[in-house]
Amino acid sequence: MAIDQVAAQKYPTGLSTRLAARNKSLTNQTAGLAPSYLQANLIVLPSRYANDFRLLCARNPVPCPLLAESATPGQATCLKSYLQAPARITLCGGEQVNEHDHVGHALLELAPDVDLRHDFPKYRVYTNGQVNRDDVLDISSQWTDDHVGFLIGCSYSFESALSVAGLTPRHQTQDRVVPMYRTTIPLCPAGVFSGATYVVSMRPYKVEDIERVRDITRSYVATHGEPIAWGWDGMRQLGIPDIRAVQWGEQSLMLDGSGRPFDETEDGYVPVFWGCGVTPQNAAMTAGLEGTVMAHSPGHMIVLDVRDHEAFSETRVTRALPS
Amino acid sequence: MAIDQVAAQKYPTGLSTRLAARNKSLTNQTAGLAPSYLQANLIVLPSRYANDFRLLCARNPVPCPLLAESATPGQATCLKSYLQAPARITLCGGEQVNEHDHVGHALLELAPDVDLRHDFPKYRVYTNGQVNRDDVLDISSQWTDDHVGFLIGCSYSFESALSVAGLTPRHQTQDRVVPMYRTTIPLCPAGVFSGATYVVSMRPYKVEDIERVRDITRSYVATHGEPIAWGWDGMRQLGIPDIRAVQWGEQSLMLDGSGRPFDETEDGYVPVFWGCGVTPQNAAMTAGLEGTVMAHSPGHMIVLDVRDHEAFSETRVTRALPS
Repeated sequence: MAIDQVAAQKYPTGLSTRLAARNKSLTNQTAGLAPSYLQANLIVLPSRYANDFRLLCARNPVPCPLLAESATPGQATCLKSYLQAPARITLCGGEQVNEHDHVGHALLELAPDVDLRHDFPKYRVYTNGQVNRDDVLDISSQWTDDHVGFLIGCSYSFESALSVAGLTPRHQTQDRVVPMYRTTIPLCPAGVFSGATYVVSMRPYKVEDIERVRDITRSYVATHGEPIAWGWDGMRQLGIPDIRAVQWGEQSLMLDGSGRPFDETEDGYVPVFWGCGVTPQNAAMTAGLEGTVMAHSPGHMIVLDVRDHEAFSETRVTRALPS
Repeated sequence: MAIDQVAAQKYPTGLSTRLAARNKSLTNQTAGLAPSYLQANLIVLPSRYANDFRLLCARNPVPCPLLAESATPGQATCLKSYLQAPARITLCGGEQVNEHDHVGHALLELAPDVDLRHDFPKYRVYTNGQVNRDDVLDISSQWTDDHVGFLIGCSYSFESALSVAGLTPRHQTQDRVVPMYRTTIPLCPAGVFSGATYVVSMRPYKVEDIERVRDITRSYVATHGEPIAWGWDGMRQLGIPDIRAVQWGEQSLMLDGSGRPFDETEDGYVPVFWGCGVTPQNAAMTAGLEGTVMAHSPGHMIVLDVRDHEAFSETRVTRALPS
């Protein structure tokens, strides 16, 4: 049975998933867990890099949508949220459930009980720009008073909307980690962060479903939104030489059950690529940041208390829902 | 004498420049005019494309920093501003002149008397994705109740800061329009706007000045900010085959007075590239938008009432100013 059916029942909410990650009864990837709850990537930086990193996110909001950061340097349990509540919110089915008429937008509290050192199923630790330790269960011994944690939106957040529309991502039905690739598309530089490139996640879809996939994911503006490229030409334009050669996560497999990796020989399906929140880890490596940098293990996210319909306006979702 | 000395005296403020463009005593390019006042690009779209265009800007804030738009469709004389006042402001020299302690940020009024149909020195009109008329003095006969005008930040806005630092852009000293190039770097797609690429402006600088140029322009976040690429390898990574072949504006010339175009044979200088507000025009062409689209003639901008120190925080400017 696919991950989205079994595990989603075991971990129905952001809180239950987060608590399971915290006590390490959950150390697996989080795709399909707590459907409709937002998931997030992590990067933890020495404070001297924080200004440049905020600017990197501001200049590259599609791969690096900044959701929140440590309220003050060293703070792992209190976050400053940047996620705005939309002026009007609806359920994905189109039913309007709330309306705010305030001028400014409220900032959504993401997870009141959060602990960035424990709440991801697995972590990765970098020293001087190189991976030092992988599959670390918590980062409490590496965390210092000088570290600033940042949460970045994750494309797992729109996967339940795709599933509701009958477009369940293949890595969920195959119970694998979404495949992720380094590209040659440059990020807009920001201070020490120069020379870095986009990381993308990939989900195979039928050519005729691409516009619907674009429409459904478009409104998820703080969790990468609509795809940045699609098709085999799109793959080549991103500078990805071989769809079977993933840098993070796992290969997608053919639908024929052969166990062979998805490639151009699979008739009718093409790769669809989204911005990916592993981009900051890649940028930190490229910049060769000095000191200790921490991040989640790709695919192993924190799940928040905010649900997609609370975070994103219906403005564009309605486009995806023929009446 | 260079443009920045003569013309800056004739047009010292945003208002004087805007009024001169409006009565067509000014039909030239605007680089160097009204030093320290923000300048802006224009794109005017049929209202059915407005939502997708806002999303294009949100996803690509470096080439497409959205400053303002028509308050309602058809409105050419009343703008909704998106330009936030910084929490703290200082003069470029580092002197603090004001401090706001409000929680939210105020939106800056850009030009109370504005008329988008007249206030640019020259315009360009597109029909069904193709240039229809160039060097148009006003667009009052093309403007309809269904048109939405958008102002996009312009890199001319940081040129006076570069000049103050002794780094006057070459196109100003040569009294030419800044050279602009189409690149192969993809924009993040947004609805109908897919397949488009960055347009960049270019200014030659000495290799040893690049970090200072980056630092000075970094804080101009709503007018393209720091460069996106530099050097001859940077040019090739942008997919620009020949620095002499400009798509908009005019070639930079050698400093030796020979009149030959700047290229790799000029010792010590390399091209430095910034995001450019002609990107939306290029994206509208790529998308083949139906109907009438209007824009400024590249290099011929509107000048606003807002000055750079009113719009941008000193946070990063201070990095550029050794004490």
